[in-house]
Amino acid sequence: MTTELSAAPLSELLDQARRDYKDLAGRGLALDLTRGKPAPEQLDLSEDLLSLPGGRHTAADGTDVRNYGGLQGLPEMRALFSDVLQVPVPQLLAAGNSSLELMHDSLVHALLSVLPGAESRWVDQERIAFLCPVPGYDRHFALCERFGIDMIQVPMTADGPDMDTVERLVAEDPAVKGIWCVPKYSNPDGVVYSDETVRRLAAMPTAAPDFRIFWDNAYAAHHLTDEQVEIADLLTACEASGHADRAFVFGSTSKITAAGAGVAFFGSSPANVSWLLANNSKRSIGPDKINQLRHVLFLRDADGVRAHMERQRAVLEPKFAVVARILDAELGGTGLAGWTSPKGGYFVTLTVPDGCAKEVVRRAAEAGIVLTPAGATHPYGDDARDAVIRVAPSYPGLAELEAAIHGLAVCVRLVGYEQRAAAQN
Amino acid sequence: MTTELSAAPLSELLDQARRDYKDLAGRGLALDLTRGKPAPEQLDLSEDLLSLPGGRHTAADGTDVRNYGGLQGLPEMRALFSDVLQVPVPQLLAAGNSSLELMHDSLVHALLSVLPGAESRWVDQERIAFLCPVPGYDRHFALCERFGIDMIQVPMTADGPDMDTVERLVAEDPAVKGIWCVPKYSNPDGVVYSDETVRRLAAMPTAAPDFRIFWDNAYAAHHLTDEQVEIADLLTACEASGHADRAFVFGSTSKITAAGAGVAFFGSSPANVSWLLANNSKRSIGPDKINQLRHVLFLRDADGVRAHMERQRAVLEPKFAVVARILDAELGGTGLAGWTSPKGGYFVTLTVPDGCAKEVVRRAAEAGIVLTPAGATHPYGDDARDAVIRVAPSYPGLAELEAAIHGLAVCVRLVGYEQRAAAQN
Repeated sequence: MTTELSAAPLSELLDQARRDYKDLAGRGLALDLTRGKPAPEQLDLSEDLLSLPGGRHTAADGTDVRNYGGLQGLPEMRALFSDVLQVPVPQLLAAGNSSLELMHDSLVHALLSVLPGAESRWVDQERIAFLCPVPGYDRHFALCERFGIDMIQVPMTADGPDMDTVERLVAEDPAVKGIWCVPKYSNPDGVVYSDETVRRLAAMPTAAPDFRIFWDNAYAAHHLTDEQVEIADLLTACEASGHADRAFVFGSTSKITAAGAGVAFFGSSPANVSWLLANNSKRSIGPDKINQLRHVLFLRDADGVRAHMERQRAVLEPKFAVVARILDAELGGTGLAGWTSPKGGYFVTLTVPDGCAKEVVRRAAEAGIVLTPAGATHPYGDDARDAVIRVAPSYPGLAELEAAIHGLAVCVRLVGYEQRAAAQN
Repeated sequence: MTTELSAAPLSELLDQARRDYKDLAGRGLALDLTRGKPAPEQLDLSEDLLSLPGGRHTAADGTDVRNYGGLQGLPEMRALFSDVLQVPVPQLLAAGNSSLELMHDSLVHALLSVLPGAESRWVDQERIAFLCPVPGYDRHFALCERFGIDMIQVPMTADGPDMDTVERLVAEDPAVKGIWCVPKYSNPDGVVYSDETVRRLAAMPTAAPDFRIFWDNAYAAHHLTDEQVEIADLLTACEASGHADRAFVFGSTSKITAAGAGVAFFGSSPANVSWLLANNSKRSIGPDKINQLRHVLFLRDADGVRAHMERQRAVLEPKFAVVARILDAELGGTGLAGWTSPKGGYFVTLTVPDGCAKEVVRRAAEAGIVLTPAGATHPYGDDARDAVIRVAPSYPGLAELEAAIHGLAVCVRLVGYEQRAAAQN
C-alpha cells in the first residue's frame, strides 16, 4: 500500500506531520489505550451473573457452596474449562478471581517450598533466572523483578519463542528455572505457538531438574476470526516426553465474564497439583464457590462458552478492524511502521523505527493519548531497539478508538520523519 | 454443682461410665464437632446475597465493579467495617474471601520483601520465631510451620497472653518477630484481651525492630450475650506508644455472611498498608469488587451489621447453651473437667485431667463423634499437658449437638475415671 504523502519529499512529509500533530494537540483529547480491559459493552454480556445463583446454593455433588471448603474448586466449574485449557478435570483447579495471583503464588511456593523434582527451595539457590520471550506481558516481568529472578530475553518468531535460543539457554544453565509463555494470541503480538514449538518446549533437555513452563493461556477462547485457532496440548506433550511435571497451565474467565470477578484456573501434573494444594491448604479454606456456581449457571457448558465468546468477538472485532484500517490508511507505504493483525487476544503490536517508540509514546501523551509505556513489553522496561508499542483497542468506544489510532499514526509520522530528517542533516 | 454419681465410689463411677460408653458406641453416631463452620441456618440469613447486586454494577464513586482495578477494595465496603475493626478507612483494605490468605500473604511478603523498619527480608535471617499464646488457632500455627518459623508457647490468662512472659521474650530475642493474637472471644477459649494487655502489647520494647502483632480480630462482631464486649484499639495504642507499624489487623465477614464467599480485611499503619499494596500490586489487579458491592447492598451500614449479628446470635446462643447445660449436668462436680462460657466467638474449650485429652478424642471418634484433634490448639500439636479439647458447637443441629456433647461427657468420665483407677492400682 502506498499513499500520496509517502511519495513526497521528506521536508513536505515532515511539515504535514507537524501540522497534523499541532491540530491533534489542539483537540484536547483524553484517550487511553494502555491496558487490555474489557469495554462496558463486553461486561454487559454477563449482566445475568449479577443476580445469580439466585435461590441456589448447592453444587452438583451436594456441596453447600456458601460454606468453607473445597480447595480444588467446584467439579462442574473445572469440567467446564477442562477442554478449553487442555487439562484433565482431576488436574485442573478452579480458584479465585485472578490467574495472575496463581502465577504469583506458584512462584512463592517454589521459592519457599521444594518443587517436585527440585533439589532445594528456589530461595536457597544462589541465582534463579527465567526466559522471557519478547515482546511479552509486563505483569509477568514484574513478578520476576519483585522476587529478584533474573530475566533473559528471547526473541519471538511467528511460531513462538525462538526455540534454538531457548533450547541452548535451558541446556547450559541450571539457574534457568522457567519460561513465560502466552501460547495463543500472545500478549502483545498475537503469535500462536506452532505445534513444533510446543513439542520442543516439552521435549527439550534442561540443566535444571525443576524447570517449569509458566503457560499463561489467557486467550484460550478469545478468537477474533472464524478460524478459532487451536494449539497443541502442552501437558500431554510434556508427559509424553518424560517431563510430566514441566508445565504450569493458567487461565481465567477475566476476559470472558467479569474482569474483576471471574474465576481463575491452575492445571498441571498430579504431582504439581498435589504440591500446590498442600501449600494452598495452609493459605486458604477454599475459593469463592458461590462465584463458581454463578459461572456454571451462567455459561452452562462448552457450547455456552463458545456462544458467549462469539458475542465478545462481535464487540471486539470491529475495534481491531478500526485499528487495522487507520494504520493501513495513514501509515501504509510510509516505511515507518509495521503492525500485527492478530486472530485473537487483546492487543496489536505496532513496530516503529528503532529509537522512536519512547518518543512516539511521549508525543502521544502530550496530545492526550495515553499508551502503554514503551519498553513495557520487555523485562526491566528494556526494549533495546526502542521500537515496540503495545496497542490495546478493547476498552474505548469506536469513535474514541478512531481518534486515538489516528492520533497515534500522526505521532508515528511526526517522530519517524523527524528521525529521518535528523539522519539527513 | 454436684451429682449423685460423683459422690459414689470410684469403681461404681467407672462401671457406670463403661456402661454408658458401651451404650454410646452402640448408637452408631456420626457427629462432627471439629471445625468452626457456620450452620446452614446461619448461611440462610444471608440468602439475599445470592441474587445481589442484581442490576447494579456501579460503586458510589462511579467505579464499574465488574472491571479490573481497585486494589484497596471499595471505599464503601471499607467504611462499613472501619468501626468494627477499629481501623480508619484510609488504612483499611477490603480484599478477597479469606483473612487467612491475608495472614499468609503478609508472612510471605515479610519473608520476601523488607518490612518497614526491618533490616532485611525475614528469609535472609538465620532464625525467625513467633509467640503463640496457647491454647490458640491451629491454622495460625500451620502457617508458621509451613514457613519454618519457630513457635514459642505463651500461656493464656483471663486477660489475654501472659504479658510478663511476652514482654521478657520480645525484649531479649531479636529473632522473635511476631505474636499471634485473637483478641476478642479468642479461639478456642473465648478470652477477651483486657485494655491493659492491649496497652502493654503496644508499648513493650522489642529486640526486633520489625516486630509485628498479627491481630486476627475474627470475632469482632460475634457476640453471644447482650454485653457486646469491646476491646481497646490496638492501632491507636501502637501509634501512641511510638510503634505505629507494629500491628497487622485482620478480619472478615466469613462468619457474618458466607463462610466461603465473604470479604476479608487488612488494616495497619499507612507505611504497612503502602508496603502491602506495593507487594499486592504485583500479585493481583484487584479483588472481587462485585462481591464487595453485594455485601454493601446487603449489610447496608453499621446498624445493618449489628442487626444481622443479632440474628446470628439467635441461632448460635442456644447451641452454646446446650453445651453448657449438658457439660454442667454430666460433668459438674466430677472434678474431671472445666470448660469455658464464652461471651462470643465460636468455641468452647474443655479442659480434662492432664494426660487425658488424646484418649478422650480417640474414644469419642470410636463412638462416631469427631472432635478437633487433641493438641491442635498448640504449636506442633504439642499440648504438653494433653488436657485441652476444642469444642465447635456451631455446625450441628440442636439434637445432634446434644447427642455429641452427651457422648463427649461420657468419654470424659470413662477416660477420667480409668485414669483415677489406674492411679489407685
